[in-house]
Amino acid sequence: MDFFFKPKGIALIGASANSAKGGYHIFKNLKTSFKQKIYPVNPGYRDIEGLKSYSSVLEVPDPVDLAIIFIPAPLVPGVVKQCAERGIKGVMIQSAGFAESGEKGKALQREIVQIHKETGIRVWGPNCMGLVDAVHGLVFSFVLPAVLEAGLIPGNVSLVVQSGMLSAGFLIDIMTHAAMGISKACSIGNKADVDECDILEYLIDDPDTGTIGLYLESIPDGRRFIDLCRRSGKPIVVLRGGKSAKGAEAAMSHTASLAGNGAVISGALAQVGVVEAYDFKQMMDLCRALAQYPVVTREKSGRVAILTMSGAAGIVSSDFIEQKGLTVAELSADTEKELEKLFPDWMPVTNPIDLWPAVEIHGRQKAFEEALRAVCRDPNVDAILIHIFLIQSISRAVISRFVDVAKDAGKLLFCWFMGHRSEAHRFQMHAQELGMPAFAELYRSVECMAAVVSRKKAARNSAI
Amino acid sequence: MDFFFKPKGIALIGASANSAKGGYHIFKNLKTSFKQKIYPVNPGYRDIEGLKSYSSVLEVPDPVDLAIIFIPAPLVPGVVKQCAERGIKGVMIQSAGFAESGEKGKALQREIVQIHKETGIRVWGPNCMGLVDAVHGLVFSFVLPAVLEAGLIPGNVSLVVQSGMLSAGFLIDIMTHAAMGISKACSIGNKADVDECDILEYLIDDPDTGTIGLYLESIPDGRRFIDLCRRSGKPIVVLRGGKSAKGAEAAMSHTASLAGNGAVISGALAQVGVVEAYDFKQMMDLCRALAQYPVVTREKSGRVAILTMSGAAGIVSSDFIEQKGLTVAELSADTEKELEKLFPDWMPVTNPIDLWPAVEIHGRQKAFEEALRAVCRDPNVDAILIHIFLIQSISRAVISRFVDVAKDAGKLLFCWFMGHRSEAHRFQMHAQELGMPAFAELYRSVECMAAVVSRKKAARNSAI
Repeated sequence: MDFFFKPKGIALIGASANSAKGGYHIFKNLKTSFKQKIYPVNPGYRDIEGLKSYSSVLEVPDPVDLAIIFIPAPLVPGVVKQCAERGIKGVMIQSAGFAESGEKGKALQREIVQIHKETGIRVWGPNCMGLVDAVHGLVFSFVLPAVLEAGLIPGNVSLVVQSGMLSAGFLIDIMTHAAMGISKACSIGNKADVDECDILEYLIDDPDTGTIGLYLESIPDGRRFIDLCRRSGKPIVVLRGGKSAKGAEAAMSHTASLAGNGAVISGALAQVGVVEAYDFKQMMDLCRALAQYPVVTREKSGRVAILTMSGAAGIVSSDFIEQKGLTVAELSADTEKELEKLFPDWMPVTNPIDLWPAVEIHGRQKAFEEALRAVCRDPNVDAILIHIFLIQSISRAVISRFVDVAKDAGKLLFCWFMGHRSEAHRFQMHAQELGMPAFAELYRSVECMAAVVSRKKAARNSAI
Repeated sequence: MDFFFKPKGIALIGASANSAKGGYHIFKNLKTSFKQKIYPVNPGYRDIEGLKSYSSVLEVPDPVDLAIIFIPAPLVPGVVKQCAERGIKGVMIQSAGFAESGEKGKALQREIVQIHKETGIRVWGPNCMGLVDAVHGLVFSFVLPAVLEAGLIPGNVSLVVQSGMLSAGFLIDIMTHAAMGISKACSIGNKADVDECDILEYLIDDPDTGTIGLYLESIPDGRRFIDLCRRSGKPIVVLRGGKSAKGAEAAMSHTASLAGNGAVISGALAQVGVVEAYDFKQMMDLCRALAQYPVVTREKSGRVAILTMSGAAGIVSSDFIEQKGLTVAELSADTEKELEKLFPDWMPVTNPIDLWPAVEIHGRQKAFEEALRAVCRDPNVDAILIHIFLIQSISRAVISRFVDVAKDAGKLLFCWFMGHRSEAHRFQMHAQELGMPAFAELYRSVECMAAVVSRKKAARNSAI
């Protein structure tokens, strides 16, 4: 599979010089990002922006081990055959018009599968958007170059999507919100040959990947998928589309996928420690939380201390914590004594710890930092949920100290924040960079903490 | 209750010239926002920023019908008595240190209740952050002046919170994200006298209020609350804190509230058409959705057409729609015929309508607009969920046309968007202004649509 991710040379079949065409976007993205050989193939051009254009893939010289195909569907089988003949190891078919689009398309896809079986050439797609690799700065896709302009943030979360969501503003959204760093984003479309299992297997051994998120409309080889998940040391998050009857119908017309029995799949996934997501951004949030805390470090877990400036937010946090199977930590007597020093006399210290009165006396920074140190020393506390209200800004240095205090104590630190839009963005950027999962919705922050804690539990159980 | 919302003159007891103090923030906020008489009361000053400071509220001249109190808790009962003596109709006590803080505080609060009973003076608070009125530009609160600087966006959603969430970055968050317009935001704290029922009653008759959102930790007078909700023509959204055992404990220490039996309360609220929220921003999202669609207009509802550029998002939308009790609309034959004109031959037209192939032919704007017109003409469609991927920007004029098309057809239009952060903000601002509820999370958009539709059903049922 390396030729898909690290090809030595790429033939781009359907390259175009017309900036309104997808074949131009792919060309442009390759030219900007890919440092090896690029061979445009299009009989209509002699060259495209200075690169020689070949009239057939058969004429393309070495080295070339990958072909990206973006031509009308009926022409694709013939070209795939030529690629195999030319000795190309893999094709990535980004054109649509196959199994997702009626009888004719189905027949075309069957032809391609047949060629794959006869020649051994690997087929990624069709009806997909290819691959973006933020760590190595590669874009093998017709996503608009705007994705690149938005600035890819490298990270260690890899994504697999059975769909074109990739292009659809999604990567741009992630990038510009600075919400997470990406390693590889793979859009696998109709899965004529290469499927989620092939990619998952590759990513499990990929040194650039720490956590894996998959959007899937079907898992045809359930056994292999489950086996892979079981042997993965890396956290895996799955969002399944087509769980409802209507959703399954839509999945059928989208990527010709048959969604299986929902409850059975869910049970099997849970057993091997897979976290199920239900929405797109939520899947990303789960991924970045798990990417931050992928390994079991504490014997116990899930007893949460809440640091807040709002009693109400503390209460609602407690509700969520109980609802998600975590517990509101009972602070030790020592911790209570220490915290009492921060508070006015009339203030009883309980968890959730409403720091507002302490903030009024000592200022926000001191109150939060000392309270954090106190709960981090408490053997009855495994995790801290800190609420940050961005009325004034919080410096990178302060966040960094928060992170260090929790890390030194071996405790989970999660953050819910709200406040001024520009402050919130800056804060989120720093938190992400420094390794504190931070969320704009309170429920989401608890949900993600619970996912991390229950993965720990699952890992511990399977270790026994 | 008008003296709380439209006082003729305000005595500020505990006014300060020290910019680090809450008593200064209140003073500054009043000075900036309140056009009637302001009387600082603090024996330590002769004047504060040019306004004469009185040594006692007894010396304050007419007109004065409201006193805002921000002094240490033990001094409050005496001052409330003086206010009553002076003929002031209401006090808003923003100091903390009462029922939420141990036996001494409880005794102080009982004293205040006693004075209220004996003299008739109305008491708002204590332990609250007062009132912000964005329509009239009033800030009766110690929230940092940054709230004002962020720019209050007037709207018709009024909020009641039993807590200081108001200050805590929340209003700033709402304002700077341009997520919704606010009418009145009322922080009622410990509810020594004025409670959620009093405020709710006022807001139900308030011409500036269209939709009401309440965060509550207890509803002591359940019968009155339910009666008010029943007679309200305006949508009401309630977020209850303290639903879990631990949450209830935290509520006890926060505002000394006893949270009641969750399931019973939920059932009663649902019966009178109240929408229950579970998180803070989600409550805001529900409020702005209901503010947009407060009235029953169609006989049927809940059959949803989905316009998207991503098959995957269409599928997941279908799952959510079924999950939330809505239905994926069966398009009429006429609509299918019309839509087929937009699509390439190979493309079967089904709902969810994946417009990507049509966008490739006609461009995004035409494809979306014509598809929207088609589904709006369809008698089998009640609501449209449109997915907007902000790869390029979308002009205000286009959004405005979308809104008009749906409005003319009498159909609900909801939007899920993602994409570039700055585009997303601009888009959200325009959508909010023009009246299309738009959400950054797909699940949230369906959840809010379902809330609007089930409110319609409830309203219809209770009308029968």
